Amino acid sequence: MTLDHPIMQGPVCPMPKIHTEKVVMGHGSGGRMSQELIRDIFQSQFNYKPLMVGNDFGFVNLPEAANLSGHLSISTDMHMVTPLFFPGGDIGKLAICGTVNDVAMSGGKPLYLTAGFILEEGFRMDILSRVVASMKAAAEESGIQIVAGDTKVAERGSADKLFINTSGIAWVPDHLQIGGQYAKPGDKVIVSGTLGDHGIAVLGARGDLGFEADIKSDIAPLNHMIQEILEVAPNIHVFRDPTRGGLGTTLNEIAVQSQTSIWINENELPVNPVVQAACEMLGFDPLYIANEGKLVTICPAEEADAALEAMQNNQYGKNAVIIGDVRESDPGRVLLRTLIGGTRLVDSLLGEILPRIC
Amino acid sequence: MTLDHPIMQGPVCPMPKIHTEKVVMGHGSGGRMSQELIRDIFQSQFNYKPLMVGNDFGFVNLPEAANLSGHLSISTDMHMVTPLFFPGGDIGKLAICGTVNDVAMSGGKPLYLTAGFILEEGFRMDILSRVVASMKAAAEESGIQIVAGDTKVAERGSADKLFINTSGIAWVPDHLQIGGQYAKPGDKVIVSGTLGDHGIAVLGARGDLGFEADIKSDIAPLNHMIQEILEVAPNIHVFRDPTRGGLGTTLNEIAVQSQTSIWINENELPVNPVVQAACEMLGFDPLYIANEGKLVTICPAEEADAALEAMQNNQYGKNAVIIGDVRESDPGRVLLRTLIGGTRLVDSLLGEILPRIC
Repeated sequence: MTLDHPIMQGPVCPMPKIHTEKVVMGHGSGGRMSQELIRDIFQSQFNYKPLMVGNDFGFVNLPEAANLSGHLSISTDMHMVTPLFFPGGDIGKLAICGTVNDVAMSGGKPLYLTAGFILEEGFRMDILSRVVASMKAAAEESGIQIVAGDTKVAERGSADKLFINTSGIAWVPDHLQIGGQYAKPGDKVIVSGTLGDHGIAVLGARGDLGFEADIKSDIAPLNHMIQEILEVAPNIHVFRDPTRGGLGTTLNEIAVQSQTSIWINENELPVNPVVQAACEMLGFDPLYIANEGKLVTICPAEEADAALEAMQNNQYGKNAVIIGDVRESDPGRVLLRTLIGGTRLVDSLLGEILPRIC
Repeated sequence: MTLDHPIMQGPVCPMPKIHTEKVVMGHGSGGRMSQELIRDIFQSQFNYKPLMVGNDFGFVNLPEAANLSGHLSISTDMHMVTPLFFPGGDIGKLAICGTVNDVAMSGGKPLYLTAGFILEEGFRMDILSRVVASMKAAAEESGIQIVAGDTKVAERGSADKLFINTSGIAWVPDHLQIGGQYAKPGDKVIVSGTLGDHGIAVLGARGDLGFEADIKSDIAPLNHMIQEILEVAPNIHVFRDPTRGGLGTTLNEIAVQSQTSIWINENELPVNPVVQAACEMLGFDPLYIANEGKLVTICPAEEADAALEAMQNNQYGKNAVIIGDVRESDPGRVLLRTLIGGTRLVDSLLGEILPRIC
């Protein structure tokens, strides 16, 4: 039995599209409006074939499946930032680079990423499209593939415009042993560039500095730089990106994990003069300001020069510098040799130093 | 050189803990308050060893690494629900089961899951602990391992108490070919139990029904049932869980994906009498109400009885029933044979049918 009605003969979904300029609750219903949002905004950019099939899961292969001797590194990150767009980036670029970097810090190659969205009712579709285009560009640069997504709509006033979750997977060959727990006495500590650019750029975009600061966020995918470092310095012990909490907190985490002490030299710390000036005016320490395109490398002393050179040869590591070393004494501590020759303890950030910026 | 100060000799973090009864902005700083939140609330429940190491990524192995002939199924889901606790479940159970089920619908075995949290400033810690305990219980039942997490804090009023993202991975042996695109003319359509329990239970908990309805959400992890079905019916074409948008929308998606039509019989549709009564009073159709512990199985006719029996033998499939079949005519359509002998088109849900319930 077939229904004798012309609508039955046509292709799928012959009904007119439901155009809206803003997100409405129906976009989160799971019904046709949801499907149109996914197709028009997300699939048009993230054109991963298995995702287009329309199942609730995406299929992926492991590239080294034929010769498997490794494991997966997995990470997840919830992203919120005000404003959504700021000099040097936006929430979309942040969402991709943040998770690409987290999984890449294992030394592995980022492969696949999922993206989940919470949209506030009334959010403008054209702004959403700009964010998604930015995500696409960052994903392409890093080489990661977006393989699954989800969107929910929150009633007006119950979410702040847009929250994005990204979760990622990297493939890590078994011969690498990289992590905060592997820092060893005698290792050198290298940072890939100036500290605090992201945090100060976002504060500036919010108008919270009280003056104009010509500073851009450093947001960038660092996975290619990591592979370039590993080519010339294969015995790296730690990669870590000093995001929330800044370099001071990140080094404390590593000191605790590895039960070593980390000694850094204040006169080696790279800080953009504009960031330095902003910090001095506001009473902040660049050691605790967030970065989104910097990494710390901790490696055996004999590989430090090669690692440094590889970093300096990459566009995101031009200002890389060796800032200190790892010692056995005082396990779990970070010590700073100050400009005037003293030594002070660098603690972890306790709570909030700044309004939410990453 | 070492610092001659007793605090340097002690174990890590000798400072007193910063107890708070409510979430404050500092818990999202990435500093010590964040670390304490992670340790006290999350790590105390999700005691996955690689997660305890303290890196920004979790390492996982593929269990079939020695004999690799398969691929990964990946999914992500943003969870929000009001109220956070309702008869039969809560947002934590929802977050685990939702993603376990999405990746399990590939026929694969769920392995690993990430959890991301957005907490509203002021959210009560004891309630967060209850949600996390519920996540732990659901993860244990399903056998999935939580391997990575992230928490951000949103200023009061800029998020609705608690949002949770979960992203999951399942391992799918290559011989399975399961997905909405594989439904074939002649296949039987089986649903694992009563429709709409979750949606009506949540509406009831919100006081939106206007009367007392003795109905519990059906939230459950369905991965074990899926494996039991595959043991006796290895040629399953489709598994799908009819969540947002309900069974009507889910069957439409499958009809479109597979370019078949799906014919279902109104007199076979299992609906709890309480749900039926609530729907009749409110003018809803149970075909569009969300489920969180039900699945649709589409399989070759010769395997339908075996699949049905396997479902009925599982605690979550006792009320499983064959509700229809797949045909070649009218591709992309879902048709309902009504109680009075007519035939009507079952469309996808367009936009919102209900206040947000899943």
